[in-house]
Amino acid sequence: VEVEGTDRRRSFWGWGNEQDHLPPPAVGRLASTLGERLGADMRVRRPPRLEEIELRRSRVSPPAALDAILTEDRFERCLHSYGRSFRDVQRASRGDFSRPPDLVAFPRDADDVARLLDWCSSLRFAAIPFGGGSSVVGGVEPDVGDSYGAAISVDLARLGAVEEVDTVSRAALVQAGAFGPAIEDQLRPHGLTLRHFPQSFEFSTLGGWIATRSGGHFATRETRIDDFVEALSVVTPAGRIETNRYPSTGAGPAAESLFLGSEGVLGVVTGAWLRLHERPIFRARATIGFAQLEAAMATVRAIAQSALEPANCRLLDPAEAQTAGAAEGSQFVLMIGFESSDHPVVPWLARALELCRDHEGQVVEQTSEGEPGGRGRGRRGRGEPARGAGPGAPAADAWRQSFVGGPYLRDALVLCGAVCETFETAVTWDRFEKLHAAVLAATRDGLEDAAHGAGFLTWRLTHVYPDGVAPYYTVVAAGRAGSELEQWATIKEAATEAILSNGGTVTHHHAIGRDHRAYVERERPPLVSAALSAARRVLDPATICNPGALLRPGAGKEPA
Amino acid sequence: VEVEGTDRRRSFWGWGNEQDHLPPPAVGRLASTLGERLGADMRVRRPPRLEEIELRRSRVSPPAALDAILTEDRFERCLHSYGRSFRDVQRASRGDFSRPPDLVAFPRDADDVARLLDWCSSLRFAAIPFGGGSSVVGGVEPDVGDSYGAAISVDLARLGAVEEVDTVSRAALVQAGAFGPAIEDQLRPHGLTLRHFPQSFEFSTLGGWIATRSGGHFATRETRIDDFVEALSVVTPAGRIETNRYPSTGAGPAAESLFLGSEGVLGVVTGAWLRLHERPIFRARATIGFAQLEAAMATVRAIAQSALEPANCRLLDPAEAQTAGAAEGSQFVLMIGFESSDHPVVPWLARALELCRDHEGQVVEQTSEGEPGGRGRGRRGRGEPARGAGPGAPAADAWRQSFVGGPYLRDALVLCGAVCETFETAVTWDRFEKLHAAVLAATRDGLEDAAHGAGFLTWRLTHVYPDGVAPYYTVVAAGRAGSELEQWATIKEAATEAILSNGGTVTHHHAIGRDHRAYVERERPPLVSAALSAARRVLDPATICNPGALLRPGAGKEPA
Repeated sequence: VEVEGTDRRRSFWGWGNEQDHLPPPAVGRLASTLGERLGADMRVRRPPRLEEIELRRSRVSPPAALDAILTEDRFERCLHSYGRSFRDVQRASRGDFSRPPDLVAFPRDADDVARLLDWCSSLRFAAIPFGGGSSVVGGVEPDVGDSYGAAISVDLARLGAVEEVDTVSRAALVQAGAFGPAIEDQLRPHGLTLRHFPQSFEFSTLGGWIATRSGGHFATRETRIDDFVEALSVVTPAGRIETNRYPSTGAGPAAESLFLGSEGVLGVVTGAWLRLHERPIFRARATIGFAQLEAAMATVRAIAQSALEPANCRLLDPAEAQTAGAAEGSQFVLMIGFESSDHPVVPWLARALELCRDHEGQVVEQTSEGEPGGRGRGRRGRGEPARGAGPGAPAADAWRQSFVGGPYLRDALVLCGAVCETFETAVTWDRFEKLHAAVLAATRDGLEDAAHGAGFLTWRLTHVYPDGVAPYYTVVAAGRAGSELEQWATIKEAATEAILSNGGTVTHHHAIGRDHRAYVERERPPLVSAALSAARRVLDPATICNPGALLRPGAGKEPA
Repeated sequence: VEVEGTDRRRSFWGWGNEQDHLPPPAVGRLASTLGERLGADMRVRRPPRLEEIELRRSRVSPPAALDAILTEDRFERCLHSYGRSFRDVQRASRGDFSRPPDLVAFPRDADDVARLLDWCSSLRFAAIPFGGGSSVVGGVEPDVGDSYGAAISVDLARLGAVEEVDTVSRAALVQAGAFGPAIEDQLRPHGLTLRHFPQSFEFSTLGGWIATRSGGHFATRETRIDDFVEALSVVTPAGRIETNRYPSTGAGPAAESLFLGSEGVLGVVTGAWLRLHERPIFRARATIGFAQLEAAMATVRAIAQSALEPANCRLLDPAEAQTAGAAEGSQFVLMIGFESSDHPVVPWLARALELCRDHEGQVVEQTSEGEPGGRGRGRRGRGEPARGAGPGAPAADAWRQSFVGGPYLRDALVLCGAVCETFETAVTWDRFEKLHAAVLAATRDGLEDAAHGAGFLTWRLTHVYPDGVAPYYTVVAAGRAGSELEQWATIKEAATEAILSNGGTVTHHHAIGRDHRAYVERERPPLVSAALSAARRVLDPATICNPGALLRPGAGKEPA
């Protein structure tokens, strides 16, 4: 597909747009750098070509009534075969599209979604909701087993509008298929922003965020999509659900919670009323270096428990700081930032820096925007809105560049023959030290087993909470051609086992999908799974919605 | 029962402790003041006496195995017959205890709860979880219909301990039967506070808060109990559920959400890990007067949308301000306050006052505590922790006194023959003006119908959100002896109809219980009710848990 309004075209096998992939010479340079670092011979493969893919025939033809919204198009079926995890890109880049959706649907509205689900229910075809397709946990893969006659990928791209803006309450009704940039583009004329910036922002949608409880870029407070959802619209096979707009309610259990993180197994989220923010004008940021991990962690905890609530509070280990160009590699680097549409935030930063200095942190750089002077009634809306997610100090800019470009780099690493994985968790402060040590040790053992130690492991903190923290790990290993998926599984299993047995959650913001389904059953109480399956039997009696994700296959078909 | 460690005794018919009820001369003075104001003849009744109550015999005797935790005691059966709504106190004060629980259980631990639920399930006896018994919506009343052989009130008072404190993550494991003051008393030695202060604080429990999604005293941010719950323990008839401690997780749907607001219909919450705060040291507060409602509302909205997040942001209408002694009755009064355990909050208040002045607000008083100077590393824990919920400026103190004493005053009004009701909602900003006008008009019409206009209506804002606000209304009318419940129903119906038809929720923090059950079905999507009922069938197959609350009687017995 052409990406609307640009000359860009989505990659059918890898991240984002084809034009933004690393050019072959850059991939070549990456291979030699990496090969040197890993002491391995990295051979670059060329990307797959659409015309070379062997694609099985669709098992079903679009019925006349749905012909306008269903396609057998080769590109679309490939694009909708996978999310964008390492496993996905590894398989896709090798031309393995052995389990494509039979058809891809592009409903135009909620009525179309309802008609599609009726059709799928009546024939027991699996219906797999698809937003941006950026899942890294097998959330959109049509791996539904043989009991379904067909698998239909339901792409909500045509539901991309901000339908209504309530500037008084600062809220908007947004269709579920809207991508991050499109949402911001439609809100900008109102001086408003959703201010939800997951790493996948450019290639993920509101519906996907809701279905997976996505985590935004910001470190504290409103960052998970849950916090932004005022009301929801869902089309289930049993009928439609619309919850009401309330700023808060004491009526429980909260209906929205049933669908936040439902991963498409209860129906298709078609839209939501979202809480918005005015665009920030005031910013204050700093980069702080720490020689010791203990001091850095103590600082982060002090800041997290201070109620200062920075927008950014991201600790990078020395290797990540160096990779991101934020430091030279000897220090842990803490990037901290505050922002406001209402008031200067320099006092907030000043107190945070006191906490840093209390723990021997060295301030490397410090900047602010939107200083006092412009204060007063006419002030609002006058300032030039700064870029959405952007920090802005040099180290922070370098970091952001590396953050957004990360997935493209990962795909290039795949073409170089590397095995890559990013995994993450959240854990209470009291358990962090033990969990972190266990994860590092287990992952290094996994690297040893999978690649004779030819690899590296880096980490950072992505989100901080008063009661805990979310660490995020990146591992890259030398692959053995043809064994990459087994190598990946060895590392993934070692890391996940260390997380789960040390009090971490299986996911802070990558979701469950199919890849984490067996793991989540170790943290979700069995009676909660049973209650959820019972709710599913009501909403999706034929169990056609994204079967195999989130809940055990068959869960929902009969009483647990 | 004697209240532990004091000479106080709980009132079996009214709010709180008997000793704290208004003494008869004060009730007499209240009656004449009120009679004068309403132009009515208010005759004071004397409170009921326990020995005069006609109490039907229990339909069941405690089995030997549960004898240690079940009682037929007269006082306990009366105390557990009602919550503390106007309807409850009206009936109780007239000696009507026609539907008491057959037995009252005092389980000592979760095992006892499990054995009780087993026993109730096997005989189809209703089990009604009871915390502090402060429900104002019929949440604990054993009005379960004739299909149950008996009704057992399950009082968690013996589960009152803070079992574990994690000072690193600032969290504690607390048993569900712990009352507000007991929780704070047990946390104080650790320098920590839960900082959750619903009006019922002294006479309500953690389990009750969780079951009803209680709202705390604070105006913004962490104020609803939902925000404090890190993990939950629940005993259901089908077995136990324990969720894990995570600061956050992307695994959905959130298990805790199923039980927050479940009002006892899915089982008995027995404990929770709670997120805590350090005790505040720094405070800054002000009282601001506004001549016009529009300007006051514009200010409140500006503050709510500023992300300054005051602890207190309470607007009183002129009548409430006067009643509470916070002003002389010609102005709307805004009480605003900030607090922190980490940093001086004067800059926060200064910006809020700018917003007030932008809208012609007049600062009446302004105070602060814990000024800079005590700054630095050794500072924490040194300051004398100030009182829990307390603002502290004179107007705010007057208000707080009136807030905490409110329920005692209400009971005295009942003895004077008045009809009283407090009702509340939450609504998005764009709909507030219309809703508020409709509620005032409908309630005045209701007052006209019910009491020929002999009554008054006051209101305040209790909580503010970026996208809306929670108004709270108080109505007092002259009763006609014997017709008070019909008069109440007339007013309640008029007000609730105005709320629901103007975009307000049936409850911001009073919950659903039995009184709001029919109303909530107008805002809860039918498929959500069906999904919830299906979850209930899994967790409570015999439908013994608090039948009639939250869900339609019979919901959960068969597929919806």
